[in-house]
Amino acid sequence: MTRTVIESKTKTAVIGFEEPFCVIGERINPTGRKKLAAQLEAGDFSTVERDAVEQVACGAMVLDVNAGVVYNSNPDPNETEPPLMRRMIELVQELVDVPLCIDSSVPAALEAGLEAAEGRPLLNSVTGEEERLEQVLPLVKKYNVPVVAISNDDTGISEDPDVRFAVARKIVERAADFGIPAHDIVVDPLVMPIGAMASAGQQVFQLVRRLREELGVNTTCGASNISFGLPHRHGINAAFLPMAIAAGMTSAIMNPTRPVEMEAVRAANLLMNHDPHGADWIRFARVLDAVGAGTPFAEAAGASAAAHGAAGGRRGGRRRRG
Amino acid sequence: MTRTVIESKTKTAVIGFEEPFCVIGERINPTGRKKLAAQLEAGDFSTVERDAVEQVACGAMVLDVNAGVVYNSNPDPNETEPPLMRRMIELVQELVDVPLCIDSSVPAALEAGLEAAEGRPLLNSVTGEEERLEQVLPLVKKYNVPVVAISNDDTGISEDPDVRFAVARKIVERAADFGIPAHDIVVDPLVMPIGAMASAGQQVFQLVRRLREELGVNTTCGASNISFGLPHRHGINAAFLPMAIAAGMTSAIMNPTRPVEMEAVRAANLLMNHDPHGADWIRFARVLDAVGAGTPFAEAAGASAAAHGAAGGRRGGRRRRG
Repeated sequence: MTRTVIESKTKTAVIGFEEPFCVIGERINPTGRKKLAAQLEAGDFSTVERDAVEQVACGAMVLDVNAGVVYNSNPDPNETEPPLMRRMIELVQELVDVPLCIDSSVPAALEAGLEAAEGRPLLNSVTGEEERLEQVLPLVKKYNVPVVAISNDDTGISEDPDVRFAVARKIVERAADFGIPAHDIVVDPLVMPIGAMASAGQQVFQLVRRLREELGVNTTCGASNISFGLPHRHGINAAFLPMAIAAGMTSAIMNPTRPVEMEAVRAANLLMNHDPHGADWIRFARVLDAVGAGTPFAEAAGASAAAHGAAGGRRGGRRRRG
Repeated sequence: MTRTVIESKTKTAVIGFEEPFCVIGERINPTGRKKLAAQLEAGDFSTVERDAVEQVACGAMVLDVNAGVVYNSNPDPNETEPPLMRRMIELVQELVDVPLCIDSSVPAALEAGLEAAEGRPLLNSVTGEEERLEQVLPLVKKYNVPVVAISNDDTGISEDPDVRFAVARKIVERAADFGIPAHDIVVDPLVMPIGAMASAGQQVFQLVRRLREELGVNTTCGASNISFGLPHRHGINAAFLPMAIAAGMTSAIMNPTRPVEMEAVRAANLLMNHDPHGADWIRFARVLDAVGAGTPFAEAAGASAAAHGAAGGRRGGRRRRG
């Protein structure tokens, strides 16, 4: 059974075929967040701090950290991203003790993040592009970390799922040449918007099953892409996540502060027999009761997690499967 | 591609591998509804009338009709159920033009329903029990109707999914002896409560896939059984339905007046590419908007269905796939 082990200073998160779904919090990312980008350029990290604490309170098991901001004062990300990545990682580690996912398209920023991160972070990402393979896989090997592998290559993102599978296979094979095992590769099969491509859901479900059965790898995705451009996105996301989990998806980079999606993930864990005795569901049902009575989700979930030692805050140990 | 065709006087519902999920409304059933049972014994059919209209407004494509009430004045269902079934079916047909599902464990009530029903109703149910096979399959053949096949037999309900699969296979084979094709058998693989059997979800998903791939049959279930005894049942049901649909489940006997479950079904239809251009989802999103603004679900859904001719009321034609 494939297990991808990610660690912070003292906590472990496992992405695995027989594990609860791994929720990777996506919020610490200035892409498309103009206000956050301006704050970061001005040296204001208050939003990063709030996003770190809030996502962990809501149930994120890993936090993605992306420093991809384009400064007005210096438009070269090769210069600006590495020091910002280092600073953001140090800051997040001071606040919460959960494993991190170092997210950048700038190799120097990935390496800066690897130097700054305690434990065993997840690197995000390598693709099937030749230059990217040659830049990132040596870092993966050098730091002995797992990596997200996105199934596009020098020809772009194929609409043909067989091509995306072949790209994933190529990355796994190339990684093996570096001595990197398949269980340290978490493939993102790429989720297209269902509003633009009607077969996008079925493509993902089939790809996830093949990636799991034929390559033996864990999988992840940017889950909310599926609902891009459509009304009532949370309803689509909340059906997509259980369907992807039933197909074998083992993690997602998503917004953990949305109770609808987190409810769907927890219900899917229960239905996949990844929630012994339904303990997590019963605990979460009380959080939903509190939310129904007016308590903000992060507050209700955080109080519950603190009481049960179930979240990766600096207090208690993360619940591990018996 | 397997298609089970069910008809009312003028409308057709299709349960099929390439069709939107078929929602069979479960409400017209006195089992566990003491007030309704007392009303029926007193000759008061107002709740049946309301349940018929409301379920169709909310999106039920087929209505289950169960007359399984035990009268205080006459405890023999062999005497009381057949005339009551006939009366209930005639009443429902006067109000709504959707195909019916005739639901009884009393063979004479099944036959009374078959005589009263217009079009091509679904019979509910046969099991793998010898006596039941010998009683029900001749009716299925005589009236040329499809039938729900429940995968228990004379030994009871097995907790072993392989045994339940074998029972389903036996029913399909026995039906073939009567000249009944597999596409007229809708197998219920039996959904156990996840709170009592932690593998219940995985069992169903695997069984549905096998029933579809190996026997080529459509499937149904009593969906809400999965969450029996647990808190926040709707959240569990709303994850279970998309997961079952992703595994290949093609219908469920469920409560269509619950917007959370209906939202999950419609999102799953979209994600399975069974909602061309997302038209149904976009229409349903407006219903959710109206519900959010305070309109009762049945009212909002009914108005939307009437405007789009999408429900099986007596007004417009049911939307068919292009």
